[in-house]
Amino acid sequence: MKPNFSLRLRVFSLNCWGIPYLSKHRADRVKRLGDFLNMESFDLALLQEVWSEQDFQYLRQKLSPTYPAAHYFRSGIIGSGLCVFSKHSIQEITQHIYTLNGYPYMIYHGDWFCGKAVGLLVLHLSGLVLNAYVTHLHAEYNRQKDIYLAHRVAQAWELAQFIHHTSKKADVVLLCGDLNLHPKDLGCRLLKEWTGLHDAYLETRDFKGSEEGCTMVPENCYVSRQELEPFPSGIRIDYVLYKAVSRFYISCKTLKTTIGRDPHSGTPLSDHEALMATLCVRHSPPQQDASPTHGAAERSPLISVLREAWTELDLGMAQAHWWATFAGYVTGVGLLLLVLVCALVAGGGVREIAIMLWAPTVGLVLGAGAVYLFHMQEAKGLCRARAELHHVLGRARDAQDLGPESQPVPLLGQQEGDRAEEQ
Amino acid sequence: MKPNFSLRLRVFSLNCWGIPYLSKHRADRVKRLGDFLNMESFDLALLQEVWSEQDFQYLRQKLSPTYPAAHYFRSGIIGSGLCVFSKHSIQEITQHIYTLNGYPYMIYHGDWFCGKAVGLLVLHLSGLVLNAYVTHLHAEYNRQKDIYLAHRVAQAWELAQFIHHTSKKADVVLLCGDLNLHPKDLGCRLLKEWTGLHDAYLETRDFKGSEEGCTMVPENCYVSRQELEPFPSGIRIDYVLYKAVSRFYISCKTLKTTIGRDPHSGTPLSDHEALMATLCVRHSPPQQDASPTHGAAERSPLISVLREAWTELDLGMAQAHWWATFAGYVTGVGLLLLVLVCALVAGGGVREIAIMLWAPTVGLVLGAGAVYLFHMQEAKGLCRARAELHHVLGRARDAQDLGPESQPVPLLGQQEGDRAEEQ
Repeated sequence: MKPNFSLRLRVFSLNCWGIPYLSKHRADRVKRLGDFLNMESFDLALLQEVWSEQDFQYLRQKLSPTYPAAHYFRSGIIGSGLCVFSKHSIQEITQHIYTLNGYPYMIYHGDWFCGKAVGLLVLHLSGLVLNAYVTHLHAEYNRQKDIYLAHRVAQAWELAQFIHHTSKKADVVLLCGDLNLHPKDLGCRLLKEWTGLHDAYLETRDFKGSEEGCTMVPENCYVSRQELEPFPSGIRIDYVLYKAVSRFYISCKTLKTTIGRDPHSGTPLSDHEALMATLCVRHSPPQQDASPTHGAAERSPLISVLREAWTELDLGMAQAHWWATFAGYVTGVGLLLLVLVCALVAGGGVREIAIMLWAPTVGLVLGAGAVYLFHMQEAKGLCRARAELHHVLGRARDAQDLGPESQPVPLLGQQEGDRAEEQ
Repeated sequence: MKPNFSLRLRVFSLNCWGIPYLSKHRADRVKRLGDFLNMESFDLALLQEVWSEQDFQYLRQKLSPTYPAAHYFRSGIIGSGLCVFSKHSIQEITQHIYTLNGYPYMIYHGDWFCGKAVGLLVLHLSGLVLNAYVTHLHAEYNRQKDIYLAHRVAQAWELAQFIHHTSKKADVVLLCGDLNLHPKDLGCRLLKEWTGLHDAYLETRDFKGSEEGCTMVPENCYVSRQELEPFPSGIRIDYVLYKAVSRFYISCKTLKTTIGRDPHSGTPLSDHEALMATLCVRHSPPQQDASPTHGAAERSPLISVLREAWTELDLGMAQAHWWATFAGYVTGVGLLLLVLVCALVAGGGVREIAIMLWAPTVGLVLGAGAVYLFHMQEAKGLCRARAELHHVLGRARDAQDLGPESQPVPLLGQQEGDRAEEQ
């Protein structure tokens, strides 16, 4: 690689709002999206909420001359809704499905049926290894009383861990997607602190687009103005995040968003705004260390956000245990009722009423049993994330106490006591 | 690191058969396992089927002086059953839960409820980065008519992908666990071909233990002789697999298994045999390239096993689609019946019979609906694995066609056509 190596990367990210039968003007918007992507010829287009595989196949066919490589990430019952179109050859593909993703009985929210995930593409560009991630986290339906908060924090943690563990040999890491998190939300801070990713909107010197970089704006005719009432300029929940891991330096030259309408015609491409970033990757100047060292100074906010996430997961676990216990008791009561009903039927006393009661009682036992099992699994998932957080917290605290000279590789025989023993 | 660097690593792996209330002499066996691990003082003890968290906590307390670091991998409803005890500090921990893991209605097999997973520990030993993985794949209940074959192949692929993507900066990779796969089974070959892992039993020059390295032997009093009838010496389904990724060379100095009984007392520690390996890691001699290059010669068996796995997943997908379609039709018939029953109740004709039929009809709709959703999810999971396999297959074929000079990093602009476009 030449010492004056420089790579320009043009990236597009959009939550396409492509729900069959429900999203307005879907076919027209998908068509216009295809035209736009073909015209702009980005290096990578990372899309979310392409729920219909037919839409993906349509785009794949339409975009194949400009973006010869494409992938649709399948998961859950409906799918992850994630797909990607690339101008360059995709070396490797994998994905991770989030352990926790809402509740199956919240059918009208539907997130549980989607199998929300993070997709990973490994690209080799001029000898540089680029790990590009695309994701979509659980939606936030009520900011004041968010029953999915613990799940979203656990998802943010799993996302951060997946990036952390799969990008160790990458030169550049790129994450695009709809995080359903405001910039100062716990999940967003956790993700950024643990991975060292930078926010294109905050880093770029050349931003053009909606006010405060918002990606859901009241000007968009598909957005419910009522929902955005507490946020007059809109909300910023879609992101382009990046970092250079080694030897390289990455910067965001320009960042654009759409502003509630199609860049060319009038109607918007989606209820979200699209993000278009031009990134520049160069060799790291000697004085600059591009990769985050998690030195003593950087560790303090990491420790603080880890603690906060730990507390949130703890609350979520308590809630999950409460529901599991409640459902367990209801199952028990249902079983007792069932025994009683069977006894009444056998005894011949109030036979007709007993037969009428039999079906609802069996329904109660099965329903409550399923809820019990679901919340047991939820508690296990939250406990797993909390244990991993606890371990990282322990190591970060150790490193802070011992100071920078102890970093980064402890010697054989150095022991961490019961720090690794999660509760 | 000194040029004459050498590291000896003593590893223990055992499927502990620790099912509360069901496994015989569980408390006694766990106690003896603790005593044995304390006495032997391995570097790492990787355990499977520790289903009770109380057993883990008991072992943790008992082993803490010898193995100060420990972790229990939580997942699913019951748990993954995986845990680890380490003499050395654990730097990082994470896990991946397999997307497919049997069927919830196969309650008596129970695998679905466990949340089978792979756990990863990152250890830094004398400046060397060791990624140690522990796993347990879906059991094989009927070798002649294995309804879980596609799931196990998908699990082997997910395991291989997880190792592939998370071990890129590791110096040494170690995988221990109960794969529920015979050495020549498709899943085992797929795993070894894609990760480049070596089998300690096949590599070591000093093996002591059961005939042919079997880990379930008829001499073990907990093993059903009837189940092992087709295999007089037993079966080998537990493994210690390893590789050195870079700069290093790893070899298995000795491998021992228990032989159907406790090494010290008479009764066995489990229904599986324990594996005890002494591995030696040294700097790679200049003529030896420790990491697999997947050169043209190595690619041929990889392509062949990828093709075989692709076919198996395809069959699994067809089966899943068949079940989903069948359950879909049953749901439809159930809904029609429900309408009929409601009409009868409203009409007042044969009211009593209609009321009696109402509950089973609702049950049919809900049950068949759940089966439909489950098999839709199964098909998506298999399709995802098949798409990843297809991509790897395409790239392996490309590399074989182009010859070794095209490896390893293609230049910017090199395109793969529709190779990345999974069906």
